[in-house]
Amino acid sequence: MHELATRLFPICRSLTGEGVRETLAILQEHLPALSLHEVPSGTAVFDWTVPDEWNIRAAYVEGPTGDRVIDFSDSNLHVVSYSMPIDIELPLEELQRHLHSIPELPDAIPYVTSYYHPTWGFCLSNNVRNSLPAGTYRAVIDSTLAPGHLTYGELIIPGESTDEVFVSTYVCHPSMANNELSGPVVAVALAQWVASLPHRRYTYRFVFAPETIGALTYASRNLSTLKLNVRHAINLTCIGDDGDYSYLASRLGNTESDRIARHVLSSRSPAVEYSFLERGSDERQYCAPGIDLPMISLMRTKYARFPEYHTSLDDLSFVTPTGLQGGYDMVREFVRIVESNIHFRTTVLGEPQLGRRGLYHTILPREIEDIVRLRTDVLAYSDGDHSLLDISDLLKVPLETVVELARELAEHGLLQEQDCTVKES
Amino acid sequence: MHELATRLFPICRSLTGEGVRETLAILQEHLPALSLHEVPSGTAVFDWTVPDEWNIRAAYVEGPTGDRVIDFSDSNLHVVSYSMPIDIELPLEELQRHLHSIPELPDAIPYVTSYYHPTWGFCLSNNVRNSLPAGTYRAVIDSTLAPGHLTYGELIIPGESTDEVFVSTYVCHPSMANNELSGPVVAVALAQWVASLPHRRYTYRFVFAPETIGALTYASRNLSTLKLNVRHAINLTCIGDDGDYSYLASRLGNTESDRIARHVLSSRSPAVEYSFLERGSDERQYCAPGIDLPMISLMRTKYARFPEYHTSLDDLSFVTPTGLQGGYDMVREFVRIVESNIHFRTTVLGEPQLGRRGLYHTILPREIEDIVRLRTDVLAYSDGDHSLLDISDLLKVPLETVVELARELAEHGLLQEQDCTVKES
Amino acid sequence: MHELATRLFPICRSLTGEGVRETLAILQEHLPALSLHEVPSGTAVFDWTVPDEWNIRAAYVEGPTGDRVIDFSDSNLHVVSYSMPIDIELPLEELQRHLHSIPELPDAIPYVTSYYHPTWGFCLSNNVRNSLPAGTYRAVIDSTLAPGHLTYGELIIPGESTDEVFVSTYVCHPSMANNELSGPVVAVALAQWVASLPHRRYTYRFVFAPETIGALTYASRNLSTLKLNVRHAINLTCIGDDGDYSYLASRLGNTESDRIARHVLSSRSPAVEYSFLERGSDERQYCAPGIDLPMISLMRTKYARFPEYHTSLDDLSFVTPTGLQGGYDMVREFVRIVESNIHFRTTVLGEPQLGRRGLYHTILPREIEDIVRLRTDVLAYSDGDHSLLDISDLLKVPLETVVELARELAEHGLLQEQDCTVKES
Repeated sequence: MHELATRLFPICRSLTGEGVRETLAILQEHLPALSLHEVPSGTAVFDWTVPDEWNIRAAYVEGPTGDRVIDFSDSNLHVVSYSMPIDIELPLEELQRHLHSIPELPDAIPYVTSYYHPTWGFCLSNNVRNSLPAGTYRAVIDSTLAPGHLTYGELIIPGESTDEVFVSTYVCHPSMANNELSGPVVAVALAQWVASLPHRRYTYRFVFAPETIGALTYASRNLSTLKLNVRHAINLTCIGDDGDYSYLASRLGNTESDRIARHVLSSRSPAVEYSFLERGSDERQYCAPGIDLPMISLMRTKYARFPEYHTSLDDLSFVTPTGLQGGYDMVREFVRIVESNIHFRTTVLGEPQLGRRGLYHTILPREIEDIVRLRTDVLAYSDGDHSLLDISDLLKVPLETVVELARELAEHGLLQEQDCTVKES
Repeated sequence: MHELATRLFPICRSLTGEGVRETLAILQEHLPALSLHEVPSGTAVFDWTVPDEWNIRAAYVEGPTGDRVIDFSDSNLHVVSYSMPIDIELPLEELQRHLHSIPELPDAIPYVTSYYHPTWGFCLSNNVRNSLPAGTYRAVIDSTLAPGHLTYGELIIPGESTDEVFVSTYVCHPSMANNELSGPVVAVALAQWVASLPHRRYTYRFVFAPETIGALTYASRNLSTLKLNVRHAINLTCIGDDGDYSYLASRLGNTESDRIARHVLSSRSPAVEYSFLERGSDERQYCAPGIDLPMISLMRTKYARFPEYHTSLDDLSFVTPTGLQGGYDMVREFVRIVESNIHFRTTVLGEPQLGRRGLYHTILPREIEDIVRLRTDVLAYSDGDHSLLDISDLLKVPLETVVELARELAEHGLLQEQDCTVKES
Repeated sequence: MHELATRLFPICRSLTGEGVRETLAILQEHLPALSLHEVPSGTAVFDWTVPDEWNIRAAYVEGPTGDRVIDFSDSNLHVVSYSMPIDIELPLEELQRHLHSIPELPDAIPYVTSYYHPTWGFCLSNNVRNSLPAGTYRAVIDSTLAPGHLTYGELIIPGESTDEVFVSTYVCHPSMANNELSGPVVAVALAQWVASLPHRRYTYRFVFAPETIGALTYASRNLSTLKLNVRHAINLTCIGDDGDYSYLASRLGNTESDRIARHVLSSRSPAVEYSFLERGSDERQYCAPGIDLPMISLMRTKYARFPEYHTSLDDLSFVTPTGLQGGYDMVREFVRIVESNIHFRTTVLGEPQLGRRGLYHTILPREIEDIVRLRTDVLAYSDGDHSLLDISDLLKVPLETVVELARELAEHGLLQEQDCTVKES
């Protein structure tokens, strides 16, 4: 995962443009079934409109003595995303109005965008900014902002049911590692693993799209399918550093996805739960009233909670192989539980005769063995209303034990799966 | 308000009779749209029957030496309400069986009624009672108890919706200030204020009727309308002294009116919540099973909780201009919240593009401003289920802020009001 | 009750056979309306099959010197229930594989069964077992295991409603007193008392059947009737010793039967509530998913919680007349509350005029009497949703007081019973 992130790091992504296409093409190498979609500029998506496509070839600022004091080729963060093309000379005082830096992080280049308000600007470290001498500067941005397309990738991995697990992540940030690349690379690894499973109850839908406008575009083009089929939804973001394991709740916080996420977090440390009030990524669209997907976010250190966030310091030393692996393991456990958290129903009325199936004592002792007792408990609560996670909580027995017992009982024909459609808890 | 109370104070009110008519006529001077209704004696109202009309011209007791030891013209509390006409001589011992006083409050004249059990009696201070010499007394009550009418007043102030706020208060007590006049005078001020509002979501219904039999009469004549339209209901009683701010819950305690009353109390001190088990006014009828209006009571010191209650001490020194003003302010805040506690729905799917409406940052900074964040939060929970009070609680932000933000968003066409019909919370 | 238990004690009961018939015939002497039912071996009942009928005439083990070291005629616990007929000689070492004793209770003969796995065995005290000399033994079991019938008894005592209270107890254990006979003898006394009641709201169904297979058989033959009619269900077991008063909750723990059982326990000491996870009797069948009767168990010391359990020590000195009486009193209180826990509705809208019925003050005092207040409170919450137990909890007034007040109001025609069908709370 870290290797893939390293390969994707230098590409200049934005809401639209060649950087997004290049990124998705590389993801396709790992996920050949990934299909790419192009949506023309000007397309109405809910309250929004797909913007013009932005591409940039070069950008720099020359100082009074003609040397390049800022150069896009050093870091694609140097240019405000969606900057208009420009080639002008101006005194330092005027240039300052187009410069962005962070006094508290004097070495960091900030990440700044202006997608819907035409402007231009450069980002640089506060140290460099302070060293700029007075005089006349030349600012050059060789960009184009013209009708084109918004590009996104979609991968469907079919399962037994049309009920879906929806995994969303975004591809629109330039060279930043946690708040961008960690999501796609963990999503790629997860998709490969899901595709390799011998059996899937759910169908899986992976979407790689620019944040906000991409999510809106995807939701508007797939609304009825999403609302009809999606039973679990995860947003993957900031999931590659070595900090907290964290989860951001869905809008109402009471879906089965929330329930499972809390369970997954309960065995990790340090673990942090955030309310939907602290949201900031594509759950803003997918959980909005009327769309109402049960989307939760799984993260390591949440966006805006680490100082490197939205700066050049969010790089491949902040995101690590162990950080990514920890994030991936968390998401994989979530999916494993989603797959196994079945609502079973008994197939017979009354207790089944476990004895003739070798699941009970032959000679009744004065005390019943724990395993026999647990079998009867799993049967007693397999009423279609209790999921295995509910039963695990009720019996105060690890979920794996309950899953194993239920599987054994199902193999003996004593339990049948309910339709995997689940009710809110 | 205190002035109006002072004018109404001397009138001898009872369940029926000229005192009620005189009182309502004075209220009509302040509320010209108030309509008066007369219901004949003998009319069946649910389990009850409208009683004969009672009127009294004079009443006194002459002592052994011929001087008047008790005189109705000094205080209309001196006669047991609904006393039969009488003119007899009798020894002190027999007279005692018709006298009422309060040993613990030796200066107070108690308030005693006997509406449905024909009798007669006099009330006096315990001090006077103890000073009565032995001998023969003459008791005279010049009253009439004869078929007539029960009189009540009703005022409808129409609003945008047929959904109603119902304000009930009573006019049947003689010269007492908190447990009687505070309710009508605050109701008059409230009705004037409501009528002056440029915009009302709700229709307002004000009823001034004698307690119990008047409420039953009103409910029986208007049952289907009340059950169909009333969304909020307030009983106004004992709301003019300088003591506690208090609220008595509806029968089940879980209506939106209860919710709002608790909110109103939360910013007042001292504030007391009473359960429905401590009820004692017209909520007994309006909240009864099968009628089931969401009626709460708003009060200062609750009836039966102040020593002056039901005695001549409950006068215009106990009820004060500041006490009335505090009660009025509480009720007005209740109505303000009722009017503003809208359930909104978003008009667009996904987050709206706030930027093009000047409601968002143009250049995205690393940290989002609080006001922008709150706008998105109000949108996120405007799902038709959450009222603005719910959202205020959820965001831990003052209700006024939420109301203001919602109004701004509605003005931009981003929120639409749900039908003001509300669900129980 | 203790006398009847003494008479039933020596009979050798098992799942089937003459011992069960003999027991039910004796119960019939006390309950002439008890009907007996015979279900042929081989009948399918849900996942099970009615087994062959087992009868035993004699059984013994002769030691090396020819003396009987174990003899069924001393105690019917000596033979493993459902042992095959046998007559063989074998050395002590081989015999040991067919012997059962309890090292921790060296004087006790354990109770062992093997209903569905053909085998044979003897039970004896550990002391005797340790004293057996080496040598050749002769083991004789004169039993038959052949097609026959499973026998159960059923008694229906009709009430005003077809809604039922179902009382289940079992008759399949040989000479043990608490874990067997306490249930049937308390059930007999309860049935006699219920039959003697001048008025019954509910119909009562008493079933005396072998545990597990008998309950399954009964449930499978009466499923739709039970599911349609049963509103309350009690399992009676281990209800004759002088220990704890205990109650085992239904599967979901939220039925009205649970509610009432908790109330009954609240006035007893020591009182223990067990969760359904600690179940072990016929509630396993009657509460199973798809059958879902609201069955709770009422017990003194719960099975498997007293050391005498499933041994010869569970005898008529452990079960006592006072123990049985305490258990019976608890069950009778449960039934009394079931009968009186009515959901009433008021017959009039608004408060009724209590005064003209002599239920109110004639002259209104400053303070209302408690009894008058309680009458109005019972009326206020008689909305069909609140049972009298709910009202008792709400008013913090003893249930008996509420029942008495409700009865008085009903006699005055002010309350009417709802259909006794109750909702889960």
